[in-house]
Amino acid sequence: MDLQQIRGQIDTIDGEILRLFEERMELVKGVAQYKRENNLPIFHKDREDQIIQRIGEQASEENEQGAKVLFSTLMNISKCLQQNTVRDYSSQTLSLLETVNSHPAPPEHPVVACPGVIGSYTYLAGKKKFPNAEIRMFERFGDVFDAVQAGEVDCGVLPIENSNAGSVSEVYDLMRSHDFYINHSIRLKINHCLCARPGTRLEDVTEVYSYIQGLAQCSEFICAHNLIKREYSNTAAAAEFVSQSEKPFAAICSAESAQEYGLEILREGIQNIDENYTRFIVISKHLYPNPESDTVATSLTLANAVGSLYNLLTKFAVSGVNLTKIESKPIGNKNFDVIFYLDFTGNVLNESTIHLINDLSNELSGFKFLGNYKYE
Amino acid sequence: MDLQQIRGQIDTIDGEILRLFEERMELVKGVAQYKRENNLPIFHKDREDQIIQRIGEQASEENEQGAKVLFSTLMNISKCLQQNTVRDYSSQTLSLLETVNSHPAPPEHPVVACPGVIGSYTYLAGKKKFPNAEIRMFERFGDVFDAVQAGEVDCGVLPIENSNAGSVSEVYDLMRSHDFYINHSIRLKINHCLCARPGTRLEDVTEVYSYIQGLAQCSEFICAHNLIKREYSNTAAAAEFVSQSEKPFAAICSAESAQEYGLEILREGIQNIDENYTRFIVISKHLYPNPESDTVATSLTLANAVGSLYNLLTKFAVSGVNLTKIESKPIGNKNFDVIFYLDFTGNVLNESTIHLINDLSNELSGFKFLGNYKYE
Repeated sequence: MDLQQIRGQIDTIDGEILRLFEERMELVKGVAQYKRENNLPIFHKDREDQIIQRIGEQASEENEQGAKVLFSTLMNISKCLQQNTVRDYSSQTLSLLETVNSHPAPPEHPVVACPGVIGSYTYLAGKKKFPNAEIRMFERFGDVFDAVQAGEVDCGVLPIENSNAGSVSEVYDLMRSHDFYINHSIRLKINHCLCARPGTRLEDVTEVYSYIQGLAQCSEFICAHNLIKREYSNTAAAAEFVSQSEKPFAAICSAESAQEYGLEILREGIQNIDENYTRFIVISKHLYPNPESDTVATSLTLANAVGSLYNLLTKFAVSGVNLTKIESKPIGNKNFDVIFYLDFTGNVLNESTIHLINDLSNELSGFKFLGNYKYE
Repeated sequence: MDLQQIRGQIDTIDGEILRLFEERMELVKGVAQYKRENNLPIFHKDREDQIIQRIGEQASEENEQGAKVLFSTLMNISKCLQQNTVRDYSSQTLSLLETVNSHPAPPEHPVVACPGVIGSYTYLAGKKKFPNAEIRMFERFGDVFDAVQAGEVDCGVLPIENSNAGSVSEVYDLMRSHDFYINHSIRLKINHCLCARPGTRLEDVTEVYSYIQGLAQCSEFICAHNLIKREYSNTAAAAEFVSQSEKPFAAICSAESAQEYGLEILREGIQNIDENYTRFIVISKHLYPNPESDTVATSLTLANAVGSLYNLLTKFAVSGVNLTKIESKPIGNKNFDVIFYLDFTGNVLNESTIHLINDLSNELSGFKFLGNYKYE
């Protein structure tokens, strides 16, 4: 048999499999309807396990594992498509739908919270997004979360990840213990400068102060000049500290911070990699659905990283959404169990996004909807 | 129709799908054989795209996306099972097979490199794993990688993740620029102590020195006592520094470090979460296959996080391996593209593990086999 003949036979088989798949989906709809009429739960783990076990027994030895994976996927697809016909809304989905239907508008002149002191990168990001807003500075990341949660400010700006240093762990940790919604993201090019009091020469500088990530992003420069790294709460506060010290210290900060605190720029663009970007999130106490949003932020814990992650990705594939971010953080137990932060494409004003969020919140006990924003 | 009748029909359809799946697998074998005989490449992206497109056209509208996912999975399974019959070894696999066949034995009395100074947690981990070995201390993580790569030492110990603070970014960054194999892992319970020069009282302490992660893991204690955080290269070096300073500074370090540098323990177990564990890896220039190893370490870059990650997880599912770790780090470009570190169950002495590694290295251009160790 030549290649074309074999392929013709494969195509015929594929057509038959597709026909059977469609028939199966019709029957599954019947099951869903029966369950709805009789108030039975949609998912039936035992029944799934029985099917997989039987398939494993019936399959030839060499194809057993493959057949099991195929039927797990088949049942996952069934469940996703059933979700589209059954409206079994979770409390999270109901609250989300209420927000969507009430069309809340964000405040026209928001009060914006930023961490650090004036001139910090987060301050610059806040200014970029809200040029005319009143910006209030708070000492720590946690203070920004607290102010947003307490309703003291309309929104808060926080750094979330850098293209070189990775995610900002402290912000992720604070996300777990606060209630908020992400409504925007901001991307800023980071151009680190080595700054000192006027008259200081580079060769006199012994210690350099900055935020952890600033130090990490300039590690090659710091190493080449044999400087001692000193961690500071943020880059602009480091500039302020250096401006007040009488020792020949330097700060790694933005050109704006140098100007703000009367420092001289000794070297510009000292980051290891020139293309250095930081992304920031804008959080609020309320969700403001926006037709321009294109990314849904969520967090979830998975009992078993393999199977569960695979099943989750099946849902995304069936819904046709793209996973734009996957980030795992330890929960903090002996087994190194993790919490996943997953961002995917979607807008809560679309029914399909609501269905997917509902599906996830129904199936995963640790699921949390964190917001909807335009990826920038 | 009642539930049992519908289920009976579903079971009949499942039986037919399974039969067609097995027939299809036989035909696919024929394709593989034809290709092998005619020296054609095994994978044919265009043919796959054509099949998915045709399925999409033939499927009903409501099941279209589900049908496409089902057939993508079906073709992924086919490819995995084809890999088991076709032996098209990549250069990485060939080199790995050569190592496996030569049965290299690790040195009986290894020289072990550890970062920091005597008493550091990594030193303690090294002592735990190699009680009688000669341990050489190197200033920085990078120095340990360099010494291993240059063959100056037999192996190096490095912290890789903490159950609370997460992964050690610096070590992951260094992994990208060095050649090495992971042969062991070590887990150590971390019990942080606040230590100062004898006679110092807690209320006099103003500044506390430690490694970034040490400071992060004790952030609540530091905050409650209003201490200024000072980053130091590692916990034991911080203890040494504090022992030499005349100011009322304190260090966060192990009880062993306190003893080593003549410090007094002011408070014990000051970490935020009592259950605080750090995992270490042991790296060598050579791979030493060991029947006790149960985890394969790899790194890879994925062009498109959605589809590719899903396809990858299909491979794991078909091979019956468990994904034990997934960690993503930015490559450092504008698009926040990431490198994935994936650990999964397996031992290179088993044929099935070799097949999976070969499959991955054939399909993913950025794939790197990083080692095989016993998860502890």
